[in-house]
Amino acid sequence: MSKYWSPAINQLTPYVPGEQPKVDNLIKLNTNENPYPPSPRVEEAINNYPVERLRLYCDPDATALKNALAGHFNVAYENVFVGNGSDEVLALAFMAFFRQEAPLLLPETTYSFYDVYCNLYDIEYQQIPLTNGFEINLDDYQQPNGGIIFANPNAPTGRLLQLDKIEALLQRNTESLVIVDEAYIDFGGQSAVELTRRYDNVLVIQTFSKSRSLAGLRIGYAIGHQDLIAGLDRVKNSFNSYPLDSLAIAGAVAAIEDQEYFEEVTDKIIKCREWTTEQLESLGFDVVPSATNFVFTCHQTITGAELMSYLRGNNLLVRHFGKPGIENHLRITIGTYEEMQTLIDVLKQHPDIQD
Amino acid sequence: MSKYWSPAINQLTPYVPGEQPKVDNLIKLNTNENPYPPSPRVEEAINNYPVERLRLYCDPDATALKNALAGHFNVAYENVFVGNGSDEVLALAFMAFFRQEAPLLLPETTYSFYDVYCNLYDIEYQQIPLTNGFEINLDDYQQPNGGIIFANPNAPTGRLLQLDKIEALLQRNTESLVIVDEAYIDFGGQSAVELTRRYDNVLVIQTFSKSRSLAGLRIGYAIGHQDLIAGLDRVKNSFNSYPLDSLAIAGAVAAIEDQEYFEEVTDKIIKCREWTTEQLESLGFDVVPSATNFVFTCHQTITGAELMSYLRGNNLLVRHFGKPGIENHLRITIGTYEEMQTLIDVLKQHPDIQD
Repeated sequence: MSKYWSPAINQLTPYVPGEQPKVDNLIKLNTNENPYPPSPRVEEAINNYPVERLRLYCDPDATALKNALAGHFNVAYENVFVGNGSDEVLALAFMAFFRQEAPLLLPETTYSFYDVYCNLYDIEYQQIPLTNGFEINLDDYQQPNGGIIFANPNAPTGRLLQLDKIEALLQRNTESLVIVDEAYIDFGGQSAVELTRRYDNVLVIQTFSKSRSLAGLRIGYAIGHQDLIAGLDRVKNSFNSYPLDSLAIAGAVAAIEDQEYFEEVTDKIIKCREWTTEQLESLGFDVVPSATNFVFTCHQTITGAELMSYLRGNNLLVRHFGKPGIENHLRITIGTYEEMQTLIDVLKQHPDIQD
Repeated sequence: MSKYWSPAINQLTPYVPGEQPKVDNLIKLNTNENPYPPSPRVEEAINNYPVERLRLYCDPDATALKNALAGHFNVAYENVFVGNGSDEVLALAFMAFFRQEAPLLLPETTYSFYDVYCNLYDIEYQQIPLTNGFEINLDDYQQPNGGIIFANPNAPTGRLLQLDKIEALLQRNTESLVIVDEAYIDFGGQSAVELTRRYDNVLVIQTFSKSRSLAGLRIGYAIGHQDLIAGLDRVKNSFNSYPLDSLAIAGAVAAIEDQEYFEEVTDKIIKCREWTTEQLESLGFDVVPSATNFVFTCHQTITGAELMSYLRGNNLLVRHFGKPGIENHLRITIGTYEEMQTLIDVLKQHPDIQD
């Protein structure tokens, strides 16, 4: 604390990302990274980028990347916004759309950066509990609001909402914007991007960090009606003209161009998730149905804290949130088959787990 | 405009960066980029970076880069903050420090992003005119304020303030923070970083975009008392955990490590600036004394608009702001000797310029 801080800064509670350990001998299943490297075309694009050109500013509009995304999603250039990771896209979107008189509605259990943004911008918000089965019930969002945001599939639960439910929400909630955060949609869900063609009150946000294996390159994007994209552009251009550097733009374009690799990798992860789910269930775990690259699970008799610490002791890092209602759940990223086999083998050696 | 925008968004007037032309045959002297490539060590670091590791999140604290900067400036790790270009560092700093009751004081002619940030965060501000010689007179900043910011050397004038004047300001302005934006300090000025060791009311912001030839990689940083850095961290971690990607961190560390190359390049640019200044003066230009990698100049008889357009017609791109008081001035980036020779040759061919 300092007398030079803006008074509002004292009230902030920053987001705490999952641990990025500095040692290499851990199996890292805690931050939902992709266990496979990015497409070989990304490596080629980065290695072929003429480093001497880094002396020049990057394209402030990241035109090449917006064009690649517009082509991929079959939308217009004007329907695409890109940013420095989906976290930055979300941060700019909260500023552009959610500073309204009525409160923002969001799930009680969801991506824990949302309420951090609310505090940053002094946005009033109301958290709506999930159902007992950890589902978002959009019927619970029928009240005056200044916006609605949820992740689909939701995190850390992994549960997917069907598109018809989202469409019904858009039809009845026409006075405020609905943001669908689809960080994990490529692992088995149907994207709401198609709804952006017919509804001007929905913005879809996605990321290259999970399904495209580029968490370390920081690329996120939003798809929506051009008036929404124009609002994001106004805020972005009042904050930082060039949020994506030239290498990130080049790498992201190459990743989008390799659809075959993308499908191969996401398929492998989906199959491994199903295998992991069966294995965990056979060891006495309850596993929430997942459409993501992680599973949200708790054991029937062992606490979450104990399991987390047991796994860490065996060089396996998973995420334990420890919040009321989910204090016994672990969020476990789907790694390679080999890594998940190690996880299952280690769990089988726990004294209280019956094989 | 859209009914889904936050009402405050309608009032924004975004920053407009200098043109990044999509054609290659122009001599680009309009955005103060370095004419020389980054250090060969940057190329090595980027080419050696294992692209498969981009599947992992980058270090949210950019520890390697903060350590390199701390070593370079002989300050502690806790005195260093890094961000996605100095524009992002500035944007976060305005939020962290300048949302106060009293107005922010800034020069009337300075980096034109400052008042954009004020509008973004609804910060009241007061612009203080420069002297007739385009100098900042810090004696004019003696009034109640919620903060003071200026660029040193100032842009687009290029004029340098001596450190004793800044120190005197810090001594009398103890109730609010002073930010010194040193984007151009490496081209001949004395940095206020040394004042951060003795004063807790000064924050110095620098960038890799100019003297380090890395505009396309987006790296900025701030040096100051650890309580100021802690304030910046609170805002950054409420906005985006990972603003610097892994390649930017690796490239920036390599750039800092090559002091010899840095000195060679900045020396060349300083010498070329002095040569360019003499040449321009011999052609009837008034040149404001510059401590940067650009000159701010106007011709005694030809308007700024005409000169800008004449140069553009000869494939030379310079910046013309066209604002009252500086409507006849051009800001011309110092390129290579060859480029500046071309500029001078083209000017000599103008019908109203006497050689």
